[in-house]
Amino acid sequence: MTGDGSAAGPAFPMRPIGIVRSPYADVTQVPRGPGAKHEAEGVLEIEPELEPGLADIEGFSHLYVLWVFDRADPPSLVATPPTDDRPHGVFSTRSPARPNPIGLTVVRLLRREGRRLLVHGVDMLDKTPILDIKPYLSSVPAAEIRRGWMEEAERRRGRGSGDSRAPNPS
Amino acid sequence: MTGDGSAAGPAFPMRPIGIVRSPYADVTQVPRGPGAKHEAEGVLEIEPELEPGLADIEGFSHLYVLWVFDRADPPSLVATPPTDDRPHGVFSTRSPARPNPIGLTVVRLLRREGRRLLVHGVDMLDKTPILDIKPYLSSVPAAEIRRGWMEEAERRRGRGSGDSRAPNPS
Repeated sequence: MTGDGSAAGPAFPMRPIGIVRSPYADVTQVPRGPGAKHEAEGVLEIEPELEPGLADIEGFSHLYVLWVFDRADPPSLVATPPTDDRPHGVFSTRSPARPNPIGLTVVRLLRREGRRLLVHGVDMLDKTPILDIKPYLSSVPAAEIRRGWMEEAERRRGRGSGDSRAPNPS
Repeated sequence: MTGDGSAAGPAFPMRPIGIVRSPYADVTQVPRGPGAKHEAEGVLEIEPELEPGLADIEGFSHLYVLWVFDRADPPSLVATPPTDDRPHGVFSTRSPARPNPIGLTVVRLLRREGRRLLVHGVDMLDKTPILDIKPYLSSVPAAEIRRGWMEEAERRRGRGSGDSRAPNPS
């Protein structure tokens, strides 16, 4: 995973479309681990020249935000998450130390002020680079979702909910 | 949006972690527009050296796949989707011609065979570069989701569901 590409093809440069304004200056301030709730409000501040791309976004209740873990540790293929005491493959976790450090957060859109989107549910650090915003259109029915090791870890801890409430896979 | 960065910061190079094996060789074969259903099966083929990152993924029913629209038109800030006859801001749509051409698809994991994940619900072209895989953990309750211009376009067409069934925002 070094150099300009991988066996699967060349690297693709991704350029920030804006930044997150968040109450979290440091990763220690972001709620994490069992039962973490993401109730913080923040702002998605889009570059002025991209504002036309936000047209009609006010009609959507929820948005996907794709962003960069720009302050993460180097990638590791195995991660021990705060929700468990056992290691798991990085693609089975939300670890920031991923081969491509892209985060994914579902936020609720509170309102738009020009090129600023006020949103609920941020779990990003202040000044996090944003790569994309997409409308959240529909969900997998809750009864169909299985959450593998996360459910097992919750059972071992003797509790039932934890991260299951937060629709955020980053 | 040209050059090595933007006002929001430098560009981030993202390297494929694998490729999609899909029945779709050409974009005209991918179901799109009103009522499109993504029922195709495909394979997420991960690079051999990254296989340890897949440990424990078998326990998850659904996965987020982040991938590259590597055959998209140049970005446009306004898009007229197949579901409507009116233009909308690109961030309010799933248009491939986005400032950062990243696609997001929710797939159902059928089974794992080593570094190959057999999945249901692919809407990517064959050989699409994959950037990341994340566990799908939970959903926004369906009753809380508003879909803006998409709902309006459906009402104008006199139908009620359309894309609302497909949890894919790419």
